Amino acid sequence: MIKHLCVIGVGLIGGSLALALKKAGYVDKVTGLGRSIENLEIAKNLGVIDNYETDYAKAVSHADMVFISVPIGAMGSVFTKIEPHLQRHAIVTDGGSAKHTVIDAALSNFELKIKQFVPGHPIAGTEKSGAEAAFDSLYKDRRVILTPLEENSSDDVAKVKAMWEAAGAEVDEMGARHHDLVLAGTSHLPHVLAFALVDCLNNLDDVNEIFKYAAGGFRDFTRIASSDPVMWRDICINNSEAILAMMNTYQKKMDSLKDSIQEGDGDAILKIFSDAKNARDDFSM
Amino acid sequence: MIKHLCVIGVGLIGGSLALALKKAGYVDKVTGLGRSIENLEIAKNLGVIDNYETDYAKAVSHADMVFISVPIGAMGSVFTKIEPHLQRHAIVTDGGSAKHTVIDAALSNFELKIKQFVPGHPIAGTEKSGAEAAFDSLYKDRRVILTPLEENSSDDVAKVKAMWEAAGAEVDEMGARHHDLVLAGTSHLPHVLAFALVDCLNNLDDVNEIFKYAAGGFRDFTRIASSDPVMWRDICINNSEAILAMMNTYQKKMDSLKDSIQEGDGDAILKIFSDAKNARDDFSM
Repeated sequence: MIKHLCVIGVGLIGGSLALALKKAGYVDKVTGLGRSIENLEIAKNLGVIDNYETDYAKAVSHADMVFISVPIGAMGSVFTKIEPHLQRHAIVTDGGSAKHTVIDAALSNFELKIKQFVPGHPIAGTEKSGAEAAFDSLYKDRRVILTPLEENSSDDVAKVKAMWEAAGAEVDEMGARHHDLVLAGTSHLPHVLAFALVDCLNNLDDVNEIFKYAAGGFRDFTRIASSDPVMWRDICINNSEAILAMMNTYQKKMDSLKDSIQEGDGDAILKIFSDAKNARDDFSM
Repeated sequence: MIKHLCVIGVGLIGGSLALALKKAGYVDKVTGLGRSIENLEIAKNLGVIDNYETDYAKAVSHADMVFISVPIGAMGSVFTKIEPHLQRHAIVTDGGSAKHTVIDAALSNFELKIKQFVPGHPIAGTEKSGAEAAFDSLYKDRRVILTPLEENSSDDVAKVKAMWEAAGAEVDEMGARHHDLVLAGTSHLPHVLAFALVDCLNNLDDVNEIFKYAAGGFRDFTRIASSDPVMWRDICINNSEAILAMMNTYQKKMDSLKDSIQEGDGDAILKIFSDAKNARDDFSM
């Protein structure tokens, strides 16, 4: 049980955690903080949060758990602003999609209370953003990865784990660098590819006709290109090494596919497509 | 109204047309023909077709409309096999996703009856294949593009248009080369990208872990990689020029995005992502 949760950045990720914990009866009070008063008002009216503050001291000084779900680039300054007001027993955790730079930011922005920060990443989301997009089942049967610091107490890690489990998720632990590599493949690369595809088509002369004849497959494929651009810019910058490596690997695959198409080598094309279909069918079962 | 429809290749595309026309009361009898007796039996049991034949003469000699929905690479030989048995008034049309090579195949495989072939392409589909995947609303509110030949009579083109409208679709006409360019962008390129992504991840060392942490966005993004590999191999080979051009344009966009990530140029990344999000949000409304 959490008596008082403070959510910094009340969007899809933070708002859905609040709603899930409320529904599970796992939290008594949720305070929100964020840059947009309009969004906080919406969150309050929708029952995502119970109240909101615009002042960091007021927002966190009574909190037992602080969840930070702002774009990664904004996390360092949040760490600095909350540290003076954190209770000694309070735990801070986050929802950042890249972990090693969030940890670097924590190490350089927390002066004394670094041990209270347990880094985490819920692997869930939709292409929508803002408090209105939040819903209480976002984390049901989804996975959360914690990348604990050596400074963390096992008690604090267990409390963050229990919170996510109360929200319906399954929780794993791994190293931050390993997390960043895995996510670069399954999440960051696909988002980059989708943004690039839509932007690429959008720059063609006959863009209106192109989109007019886009069918269901295209809608599914490009859905993630409607995701929050600021959040994804920050992920690209904060996991650049792994993302660039994945983009290079991907382009090599594209090059070899291009060669096969150029040469009309049906067997080589068929092998790539069949292997992909089999892998996709296997993992989606 | 169509008295007797023959569907050659009773899968998702051909089967769904049969079901839609039956539901609309637009066809009296549907005969199927295909390579797999097992699939034809399933189609018959599901009511997709009324009967099936394994002999081309028997299948088409009483048909008023023949719909060919086999992978593009197999169309040339189908044209040759059906021509001797076509009634003088029968119309032949197809569902191939690339049009100029299907037309080339028709021109070189039909000896006399080329004027009876009206090329078409329903822009609809799912990642599933086979008669079991067919459903009667696949074409509802979807678009069909006809790329008529100068040999076609306007009456025959009108009859194909009316058939697709009876199936629920909206029908446009355009040139075959133009069709192939538009579809290369909205359909062929996304499929190639999705197949390449899944195959790329599938070749990584930690493939099981990669797929374990794949979330909803990844599932949507890679759904089309479960599509029929043979059909898509044939599309790549038969629309290679336009697809290669789109792949090159796409790789240039990827290169510029890679440079921006490498340089940590957040503004450039944000511009690409924001433009893409705006375009995606606009066209999906």
